[in-house]
Amino acid sequence: MNNYKLTIQYDGGRYQGWQRLGNSDNTIQGKIESVLTEMAGEPIEIFGCSRTDSGVHALAQIANFKMGGNSTESEVMNYLNRYLPQDISIVEVELVPERFHARYNAKDKTYLYKIWNEQYTNPFMRKYSMHVEETLNIPSMKEACQYFIGTHDFTSYSNAKSKKKSMVREIYTIEIEEIAGFLEIRVRGNGFLYNMVRKIVGTLIEVGLGEIVAAKIPSILESKERVQTGRMADPAGLYLENVDF
Amino acid sequence: MNNYKLTIQYDGGRYQGWQRLGNSDNTIQGKIESVLTEMAGEPIEIFGCSRTDSGVHALAQIANFKMGGNSTESEVMNYLNRYLPQDISIVEVELVPERFHARYNAKDKTYLYKIWNEQYTNPFMRKYSMHVEETLNIPSMKEACQYFIGTHDFTSYSNAKSKKKSMVREIYTIEIEEIAGFLEIRVRGNGFLYNMVRKIVGTLIEVGLGEIVAAKIPSILESKERVQTGRMADPAGLYLENVDF
Repeated sequence: MNNYKLTIQYDGGRYQGWQRLGNSDNTIQGKIESVLTEMAGEPIEIFGCSRTDSGVHALAQIANFKMGGNSTESEVMNYLNRYLPQDISIVEVELVPERFHARYNAKDKTYLYKIWNEQYTNPFMRKYSMHVEETLNIPSMKEACQYFIGTHDFTSYSNAKSKKKSMVREIYTIEIEEIAGFLEIRVRGNGFLYNMVRKIVGTLIEVGLGEIVAAKIPSILESKERVQTGRMADPAGLYLENVDF
Repeated sequence: MNNYKLTIQYDGGRYQGWQRLGNSDNTIQGKIESVLTEMAGEPIEIFGCSRTDSGVHALAQIANFKMGGNSTESEVMNYLNRYLPQDISIVEVELVPERFHARYNAKDKTYLYKIWNEQYTNPFMRKYSMHVEETLNIPSMKEACQYFIGTHDFTSYSNAKSKKKSMVREIYTIEIEEIAGFLEIRVRGNGFLYNMVRKIVGTLIEVGLGEIVAAKIPSILESKERVQTGRMADPAGLYLENVDF
C-alpha cells in the first residue's frame, strides 16, 4: 500500500465543511473520497489535518490516504483534478512514508482571516472576506492580540460540544497586516477548537470598533463561559493557510 | 442640474454586459439607472465610458449622469451602494463640470487580462481569470505584443457588426507580467472595438502555446478578415482597469 499526501485548495462556500457526514457527500472529504474510491475500485478513506467548518476555505489543507496499486504522484493528481468539482483543487501529491498521518503528525497550523475594511463592498472578494464598513482601530486590535498569545484554556472562545477533552491550546503568534483595503489576520498555534479562530477574530473586530476594550480579554478567558464572548466572524473570510509537520 | 461622475467596480459574471438592452435590466447600466431613477423620482440616464461585454468585469468603469436637486457626493454614493446588488459597487462619486462626458472625454483605456497558468484550477479565481493548463512561452508572447502596438485597422481582431465606422485604433502599450501563477496582460489604447481585447489575448495565448508564430500577426491584421483570427479569450479574465481623461 502506498501512502499519499495531498495538498488541497478549496473554496468552501458551497460545502458543509471538511468532514464527511454520514452519507452526505456535500463535504470536501466526501467529494475527494468518492473520486478516490472510483479510482481505486475499493473504498478509500482520507485523513485531513483540519476539520474546517462549513463555508471555510483552504489554501493548503493537508490530507493523506493509503491505496494499493502503483499509481504515481502525477497519476493521482491528474485523476483527482479531472473528476473533482472546480472549487476543489489538488495542488500537490507526494508519496510519504507509511507512518505519516496528516492529523496526528501536524505540529502547528496557521489560519488566515481576511477583512475588507472599506465603506463599499468589494465585488470580487465578497465571498472570500468579511466586509466591515466602519474603520477599524488597528493599534487597539494589535494590543488585543497579545492577550490571546500563549497557553490558555479557550473554552470561552469555542463552541466545542464535548466538555471532556482538554480545551487548552497554545497560540504562538497573531499578526495583523494592512494590504490595499484588506486586513489580513494570521493566527498560528498548535491546535484550534471548533469555531475558535472565528470567535477570536470576532473579538478583535469588536475591539477595533471600540465595542469592548482589549484589557477585558483575560477575564473572558478566565470565565471559561462561552456566553461571555461576543460576535463570531463570518466563515467566508477564513482560510486554513499552512500546516507544519 | 448637477453632473456626477461615478467610479464603478463590478463582477460582470452574471450580467449581459454594461449596456442597457431595451427593458431588460440584467445589465450593469440598467441596474444603476433603476436605482438612480428611484432616488431622483424621474428617469435618469447614465453614460458609461466603456460598453464592457457580457461577463466582463470592471475595476474602474467611469460613468456620468445629470440629476436635479442638491444631493451631495456621499449621499449619492451611500444611496447607490445601499440598493445596488453586492456584485456592483460604487467606489467614488465626484461632482464634475457640466460639460464632462464619460464616453466622449475618455482619452485612453487600459484593460487587464488575467490568465491562471498552472496545471490545477485556482478555486478562488476560477470566475475571475482564464485557466490555461499548458505552460505558456512568455518571451514569444512578448514578441507577439509588438505587432499589435501602434495604429492599425483592427477589423480582423473585432466582431464589430457595423462596417461603416472606422476600425482604426491605436494601441499604446501591451505589458505582460508574471505574478504568483498568474499572467497579467495590460493593454492600453485610445479605444477598442467589440471583442478586440479578447481576440488579441486569444492570439497571444495561441502564440504562447506554439500554435501560431508571432510573425504571422501582421498578415492577419492586413487581411482585414475576422475569419483569419483564432480563439477568443474567456470574458471571465477581462477587466476594465483604468480610464484616463
